[in-house]
Amino acid sequence: MRNLTLLTDFYELTMMYGYFLQGKQDEVATFDLFFRPFEESNFCIAAGLEQAVEYVNNLHFTKEDIEYLRSTKAFNDAFLSWLSDFRFTGSIKAVPEGTVVFPYEPLMIITAPICQAQLMEAALLNIINFQTLIATKARRVCHAASPAGVLEFGLRRAQAPDASIYGARAAVVGGCTSTSNVLCCQMFGMPPKGTHAHSWVMSFPTELDAFMAYANTYPDGCLLLVDTYDTLNSGVPNAIKVFDYLKKNGHKPLGIRLDSGDLAYLSKEARKMLDAAGHADCNIFASSDIDEYVLVSLKEQGAKIDTYGVGTKMITSHKTPSLGGVYKLANLNVDGKNYPKMKISDNPVKMTNPGVKTVYRLFDRKTDKAVADVICLADEKIDESKTLTITHPVERWKTKEINDFYAKELYADVFADGKSVYESKSVYEIAEDCKKSLDGFWDEYKRLTQPHAYKVDLSDKLYELKQSLIIAERETVKR
Amino acid sequence: MRNLTLLTDFYELTMMYGYFLQGKQDEVATFDLFFRPFEESNFCIAAGLEQAVEYVNNLHFTKEDIEYLRSTKAFNDAFLSWLSDFRFTGSIKAVPEGTVVFPYEPLMIITAPICQAQLMEAALLNIINFQTLIATKARRVCHAASPAGVLEFGLRRAQAPDASIYGARAAVVGGCTSTSNVLCCQMFGMPPKGTHAHSWVMSFPTELDAFMAYANTYPDGCLLLVDTYDTLNSGVPNAIKVFDYLKKNGHKPLGIRLDSGDLAYLSKEARKMLDAAGHADCNIFASSDIDEYVLVSLKEQGAKIDTYGVGTKMITSHKTPSLGGVYKLANLNVDGKNYPKMKISDNPVKMTNPGVKTVYRLFDRKTDKAVADVICLADEKIDESKTLTITHPVERWKTKEINDFYAKELYADVFADGKSVYESKSVYEIAEDCKKSLDGFWDEYKRLTQPHAYKVDLSDKLYELKQSLIIAERETVKR
Repeated sequence: MRNLTLLTDFYELTMMYGYFLQGKQDEVATFDLFFRPFEESNFCIAAGLEQAVEYVNNLHFTKEDIEYLRSTKAFNDAFLSWLSDFRFTGSIKAVPEGTVVFPYEPLMIITAPICQAQLMEAALLNIINFQTLIATKARRVCHAASPAGVLEFGLRRAQAPDASIYGARAAVVGGCTSTSNVLCCQMFGMPPKGTHAHSWVMSFPTELDAFMAYANTYPDGCLLLVDTYDTLNSGVPNAIKVFDYLKKNGHKPLGIRLDSGDLAYLSKEARKMLDAAGHADCNIFASSDIDEYVLVSLKEQGAKIDTYGVGTKMITSHKTPSLGGVYKLANLNVDGKNYPKMKISDNPVKMTNPGVKTVYRLFDRKTDKAVADVICLADEKIDESKTLTITHPVERWKTKEINDFYAKELYADVFADGKSVYESKSVYEIAEDCKKSLDGFWDEYKRLTQPHAYKVDLSDKLYELKQSLIIAERETVKR
Repeated sequence: MRNLTLLTDFYELTMMYGYFLQGKQDEVATFDLFFRPFEESNFCIAAGLEQAVEYVNNLHFTKEDIEYLRSTKAFNDAFLSWLSDFRFTGSIKAVPEGTVVFPYEPLMIITAPICQAQLMEAALLNIINFQTLIATKARRVCHAASPAGVLEFGLRRAQAPDASIYGARAAVVGGCTSTSNVLCCQMFGMPPKGTHAHSWVMSFPTELDAFMAYANTYPDGCLLLVDTYDTLNSGVPNAIKVFDYLKKNGHKPLGIRLDSGDLAYLSKEARKMLDAAGHADCNIFASSDIDEYVLVSLKEQGAKIDTYGVGTKMITSHKTPSLGGVYKLANLNVDGKNYPKMKISDNPVKMTNPGVKTVYRLFDRKTDKAVADVICLADEKIDESKTLTITHPVERWKTKEINDFYAKELYADVFADGKSVYESKSVYEIAEDCKKSLDGFWDEYKRLTQPHAYKVDLSDKLYELKQSLIIAERETVKR
């Protein structure tokens, strides 16, 4: 396992050093990892927790790390010696991977001595931000492609090796059936997918020679790329010749792949040609700069495509390639006393929610569909037997009464007193959890454009705490 | 070193298997790795070669890899046994890192037995695409910030750990002075940069307490983040108190950092306040969603900022988060005879240049500035003593005569007969090479919007080869 302990911003270490010098290293901090409203989707699919847990489990400064830090001349010997015994001893609660999450709902809640919690900020954000971004993008792509399946094909355009591996993993969490990335498949137990490239065709004297050679390599499940020279005049007719040959010899070809040109037109024409030649059982695969918007348009045009290969636009979340996840101090416990903390800002979007919190998702008993989420303080309980009044987090005059519901807390314990209590699942199990979490929401919340706004309330107790801290802070600044 | 041998698309392996079964594994292929016109910049800064060389040097299938491939049931024993002895035995030429490169100019030219060259496609593209993308973006950001310096701050929003590490490396190649990413600094010998976060300030009873504690931690070079509560009413006045205290005690504070709000207004006001308090020697650092377009606007408004921290927008190349690098077959050598190859397409942008090639950059002898690049066949020589006629690669009637020039070939050998002959350089040496390469171009080519079009010609011999292959191919399809 790679040692990512130094995968941190330098200021985390200078702050740790400062806390250490101030004798504050035993103060227990609670940090929330959450994202603010994300322009491309009203909700996200939580992903990356498994890698976050691995990272925390493996936190330690090697001798080389300590010597490296010494060489920066920013730390004294006492601190470096203390660092060499550094281990995570805190607790972490997290939203399980594959869960639908909304802005401001913590994906992870880290409670630990402040130096430990501070060190992990940058790496946890790096891991969770990216996988959550890609799982969210993949959910949208798969939603638009459905009932056609989607394969992840982004390795060559992913932002460095890890992004290709963990991005493909997150894409499967979000609904893709698999990936072309062999290393990712090896690591996470998925079947690698793929056929041949244009270079295969170009390396033979003719396209038909190339197709025959490929068919002889993989007579069963043969899939041929038909756009190297001229899709309808050369590629599809040659593929049909090869499929005739394969069937005559008792094999079942899989189909053709289109990788350029007008996919709507070409797929409809190719479908007719295949059907007319008695190959109605052959599928059409398509790839070429596809995202959810292209998929909606292809569907509208009646494209005849059974499976999509989606690369660049999904693996980079091309339209919005970052999720603005942040990691904010919510509470400080000093000598057993809690001090709720929040970031005050002139920009209300940048305000944070103070205190040690939890989130409940409320479901209608008749439909099992989610009606609202409530962010509240960790010690608050939801009474399912009473009417619950949900209030808009900012516009407090907007209220809604909820009856006949049940409440589910969103979190699972992943670390307790420094020990991992995380239950690992396979990627396909997580993908199944994702499907279930999505099934808990009406279609109106899941459509791609202008979805219905889902209600995420702050409990009255949390709202009042927040207001009191804002007022107290404004008073302090005035003084 | 990580084993990235399986970091490949599955179709590379199925094609290798096909070539193996066809007895084609000794045919020698030449592939070009190049990018097509990139919407965000007229040229790119080549980067990532060092990691590409490491990848090639380390190519081998472990026993576990072989067993994994066996489990896919896609390959026979003879092939798997052949794979277990697999090593790279070919040659690679590449444009050195930090070099200005234009569309269609190969960044790498790989000549090797076809199975070897095919396997590497996806990983080489992954490595080179991303680092070249970020070096190119960083060049633009640094160009816009100049004379202010730029630090790379993108770890938390980078697309997984590798992107943060290799992206920060590429950002320094492109002109950044350093990064906050400690692991990247450890790996590549750069000084890590950073101060403290809002959470530091929030963890103390008051902002002034927090600033004093930080100043006592780092009395020399103290940099204070002033926007936790209220920049001009609290942050800057508190920072001034602390700077007064530090100077009284013989220390030299570094300055303040702004991380939110209107950076133009706040920096100008903070500058006045610092100057009035006798701290004209204190610098102003700024971060907050900065890219080259924001920088141009800040300059126009007369913002008083000495150093920028740039995160999300640079580390993801936010506006265009992928470089469309491709890897295309250019030549096949069978039994000592060359067969130049090209991808034919109805879309002229997707056409490739056939044959084993090289690129010359022509410089004016009087100014040492580049006047044009010529893509030609590898055996062509440029005669510096004669007038050279440069022709537009498509519009052949557009010509320009060049005299009194010298020609430099863009490539260095990095592998010869399977052995690395690559000369490793430090990141700052590469950054210096980048500066030199940029200095070879007039400002008109380097401005950020609507730059002057630089001339990249195809030699007559290459142009004629390309035309003859297109005509031959069209004839074949007609038959």
